[in-house]
Amino acid sequence: MALRELMGTAASEGLAIGRAVVMREEAAPQAMAYIEAGAEEAELLRFDRAVAAAAQELEALRSRMEAEEREQEAEIFEAHLMLLEDEELIGQAQSSIREQRFSADSAMSDAADKVAELLASLDDAYLRERAADIRDVSRRVIRLLRAGQGPDGVLAFVGNDEGLERSEKSVLIAHDLTPSDTAQLDTASIAGFITAIGGRTSHSAIIARSVGIPAVVGTGKAIDEVKDGQLVIVDGGTGIVLVEPTESELAHYRELQRRQAARQERLKPFHGLPSVSADGHRVELVANIGSVQDAQQALKQGAEGIGLFRTEFLFMGRPDLPKEDEQFAAYRSVAETFGKDAPIVIRTMDIGGDKELPSLQLDREENPFLGYRAIRISLDRPELFKTQLRAILKASAYGNLKVMFPMIATLEEWRKAKGLLEACKQELTTEGVPYNERIEAGIMIEIPAAALLADRFAREADFFSIGTNDLVQYTMAADRMNSKLGYLSDPLHPAVLRLIEMVIRAAHRENKWAGMCGEMAGQPMALPILLGMGLDEFSMSAAAVLPARALIAELDRGKLIDLADKVLELEDAAAVREYVKQHVPALNEVLD
Amino acid sequence: MALRELMGTAASEGLAIGRAVVMREEAAPQAMAYIEAGAEEAELLRFDRAVAAAAQELEALRSRMEAEEREQEAEIFEAHLMLLEDEELIGQAQSSIREQRFSADSAMSDAADKVAELLASLDDAYLRERAADIRDVSRRVIRLLRAGQGPDGVLAFVGNDEGLERSEKSVLIAHDLTPSDTAQLDTASIAGFITAIGGRTSHSAIIARSVGIPAVVGTGKAIDEVKDGQLVIVDGGTGIVLVEPTESELAHYRELQRRQAARQERLKPFHGLPSVSADGHRVELVANIGSVQDAQQALKQGAEGIGLFRTEFLFMGRPDLPKEDEQFAAYRSVAETFGKDAPIVIRTMDIGGDKELPSLQLDREENPFLGYRAIRISLDRPELFKTQLRAILKASAYGNLKVMFPMIATLEEWRKAKGLLEACKQELTTEGVPYNERIEAGIMIEIPAAALLADRFAREADFFSIGTNDLVQYTMAADRMNSKLGYLSDPLHPAVLRLIEMVIRAAHRENKWAGMCGEMAGQPMALPILLGMGLDEFSMSAAAVLPARALIAELDRGKLIDLADKVLELEDAAAVREYVKQHVPALNEVLD
Repeated sequence: MALRELMGTAASEGLAIGRAVVMREEAAPQAMAYIEAGAEEAELLRFDRAVAAAAQELEALRSRMEAEEREQEAEIFEAHLMLLEDEELIGQAQSSIREQRFSADSAMSDAADKVAELLASLDDAYLRERAADIRDVSRRVIRLLRAGQGPDGVLAFVGNDEGLERSEKSVLIAHDLTPSDTAQLDTASIAGFITAIGGRTSHSAIIARSVGIPAVVGTGKAIDEVKDGQLVIVDGGTGIVLVEPTESELAHYRELQRRQAARQERLKPFHGLPSVSADGHRVELVANIGSVQDAQQALKQGAEGIGLFRTEFLFMGRPDLPKEDEQFAAYRSVAETFGKDAPIVIRTMDIGGDKELPSLQLDREENPFLGYRAIRISLDRPELFKTQLRAILKASAYGNLKVMFPMIATLEEWRKAKGLLEACKQELTTEGVPYNERIEAGIMIEIPAAALLADRFAREADFFSIGTNDLVQYTMAADRMNSKLGYLSDPLHPAVLRLIEMVIRAAHRENKWAGMCGEMAGQPMALPILLGMGLDEFSMSAAAVLPARALIAELDRGKLIDLADKVLELEDAAAVREYVKQHVPALNEVLD
Repeated sequence: MALRELMGTAASEGLAIGRAVVMREEAAPQAMAYIEAGAEEAELLRFDRAVAAAAQELEALRSRMEAEEREQEAEIFEAHLMLLEDEELIGQAQSSIREQRFSADSAMSDAADKVAELLASLDDAYLRERAADIRDVSRRVIRLLRAGQGPDGVLAFVGNDEGLERSEKSVLIAHDLTPSDTAQLDTASIAGFITAIGGRTSHSAIIARSVGIPAVVGTGKAIDEVKDGQLVIVDGGTGIVLVEPTESELAHYRELQRRQAARQERLKPFHGLPSVSADGHRVELVANIGSVQDAQQALKQGAEGIGLFRTEFLFMGRPDLPKEDEQFAAYRSVAETFGKDAPIVIRTMDIGGDKELPSLQLDREENPFLGYRAIRISLDRPELFKTQLRAILKASAYGNLKVMFPMIATLEEWRKAKGLLEACKQELTTEGVPYNERIEAGIMIEIPAAALLADRFAREADFFSIGTNDLVQYTMAADRMNSKLGYLSDPLHPAVLRLIEMVIRAAHRENKWAGMCGEMAGQPMALPILLGMGLDEFSMSAAAVLPARALIAELDRGKLIDLADKVLELEDAAAVREYVKQHVPALNEVLD
């Protein structure tokens, strides 16, 4: 057994093996320093100069990241630039210099602490992690005030330690990494990192995924036991960290690493290719996203477009609602990321259920998954809904946008939603605003009633996209978050497969296309069945796109039609799994 | 407008119109009376004699009720008899005579107060209302101690008031009615009653329903404003009470009353008849019940058997779990109520969801309707489940019992449940206990997955019973308790109808029978469709049985087969409703 095993949040997939480089703890905060009476104006000038210098640094970093096409990092520095103009942060520092005669560094540090504390206390993971950005910006300003007292970022810590083999990459161990630290990590010398705090949506985690270095965050205090120079294995896919592993553990992980690398290597050629089966049947492999950043990521990972843009994330983690212009900018930006022809399916907001929205003040419900959510709210609040529809329509002038309505159960709901879309089109026409008049409008099939009446819906909708996560939950009457009912949350249950087949058949009979945007669409075990049923579009997490394309290239669609029929007659998910395994040899390697 | 309008709990259906007879408020409780030292033994003797006399009275009442086949009332007096042997109540009174030198009446009244207060404080409607029984018994004992100081029951209050038209029946107005009061109500002179306190499960409400007199309970203090001799309308179906109505209100209610009476009259001949359509197609009309008392009620209201015995009510409102013998007694009693041949479908407990059970200490869930409930709990706690299965099997020796499993989603669950049933049979065989070896075991179809795989289930199960309340909820993904989503809770939605048709067809293909035990089974609008689809058994609230039988007698099943096919192709519930109304003229009168 390894000397230590740490468990944290799996923040960025992949295996890193290397010697620990422990980042020095930050110095304890200084006591507040004060200035003489009458020195306020001079101190304010000093402060403003440091802020301006910080802005210059950030602008330079932003440009460099953009030049390197590291757009996520560029956006983070852009956000930091905006913080330097933030009244709450900078204004507060200025006024405490003026009114309390704080020194400029004390004022900066105090203001940052207050704003960060406020954010950290919020019941919202996203906002909580923005506190790290505030502290990062504040540290930059303070460093500049103290003029060259320390290095910018962590690069200086790496590779300078005696006794490390120069040829080996390092694993960075830190209490926390600022976004600046992470963005400037030298991936040539750093194999991965571990932090004591942070979650999956912290900027350092996002950047790690973007740069592609393995990372585990939030290990807690246990990280303090890791010493410089110890051998460390970081499994960014499981959140496991091994310190000073045994020979056999090391051999095991080296083998895993080798296989992962080989798999990555095999997948590379599929980048930029169409998704075609061995016998020439073409499908579309697209990605599920929740933000503009995700879209950039998806493009890099080989997605042909977006099959599900979860727009509710634009609405969450903020006290107000996003205005039409802000939404328009987001939708347009996603469209432009993929260029004019790539399909971009924008799902109107799915608020409610497990996604609360403070700005709407929704009632607490007994069974939120069976409650007032998604299209039910949108139809009930047409002014809110129309803002979103107008933003989508406007953005449709910049790419191949499609609009999709979630949680449709009845034809009446669908017609009301479609009616509001048409009303928005009329408005834009009257206003002379350009949009795609023939924008496709589709239905997310995630309620059994909609699947059962797919033949009727198919006459009117332009497309379907099957949302298997919810569809499974309702079909099996089992909350997918309920740990006691895991055995009921299997999309390969024949009852679910029968509904899916019904939906695809209904779409094709009316010459419409059918896609899928639930987790199932990316599962290797499901791909042969869905291909056999004739699913046209598969929308999945970006990381699953290339593996899916590689698998499909090995499959013979003609032979899968029978397989898809056969599994509908099996009695449970286990039987389906067994049958598919036996009849699709190409899966063996993938499932290995 | 009437002088006053009161709103209470609809406790017993029907319309009563009559002059108010206000029951005098009980005298304020006396101060405690004490006895001399040394008089304890004599007082104890006096007390025991009064208790014995009370027991004699109750025994006489019980016999009389039994002779009149008023079994619910008989049971209440039986329960009162048991209270007279209750250590908590009688023992406490005796010891306060002995140790505190209370007089016998003070001791009785004090003990009753304490026990009743304890019950009244419980968070359980059923137990709370048992406090009334305690007070009733105590009052009887005290009256006997004081020897003839007041009448037994309320009969003396009725019809003695000057100024009432002798020909008119009265409406009794009371703060509360004891079970004894209610059981002895003279229905020849009392048209209905209203009480300030009590709920639907109070004994007075139960008896009102059993005797068939309209009643509204729990009107609160407003009742104090009603004066002797005022004209009162009691609508026991809505909970509305009108005091001194206007001429037009009176005319309206008299007309309603006339029509209700006429309808009752038309239904009478259908009592005891089989349920047969105009063209000779026979179906079974049975009742949904939650207790042994309900079964007696269902028999009186013309049910041919029981299609759903909700056994969880045996488990609720108590701190412990019912033992095998207690359950056996309940199941046997229901079987014996209906005789050897009538079908009695016993559903194993559906705990969880909205039905909590303190003795199981279930976790609070995010989405209880999609949670750990019913068969999911039973399979997880086989010892609990087997106790119930053994009790059902034992009772199967006394009637035509069938066992049904709720919330089955997969074949695996069904086979596990069936396996436990077989194991219990083995045990009983070994023990030499008689049971019906060929007892039918069926599945409650209430999860879409089970409906979608009905063809597979039908090969193994002996019957299906479609539970439409839950089936609709899952198929439409809408909590039926959520007031915002009422428009989605309609069993006539074609998606639901398609599932129902699938289930019936699957059952018949394997020569099994299909029933329905959701609310839909009793809805006049649904009957023609279900008859057309070939549903074999309709289980509904007892009050709906005779109206359903009368309606079916007017329907031509042969013509409904097409109708049932046609509605599957309609687009929403409104269209189904419209179509059925147009094509089934017999409905016009019923829906009037």
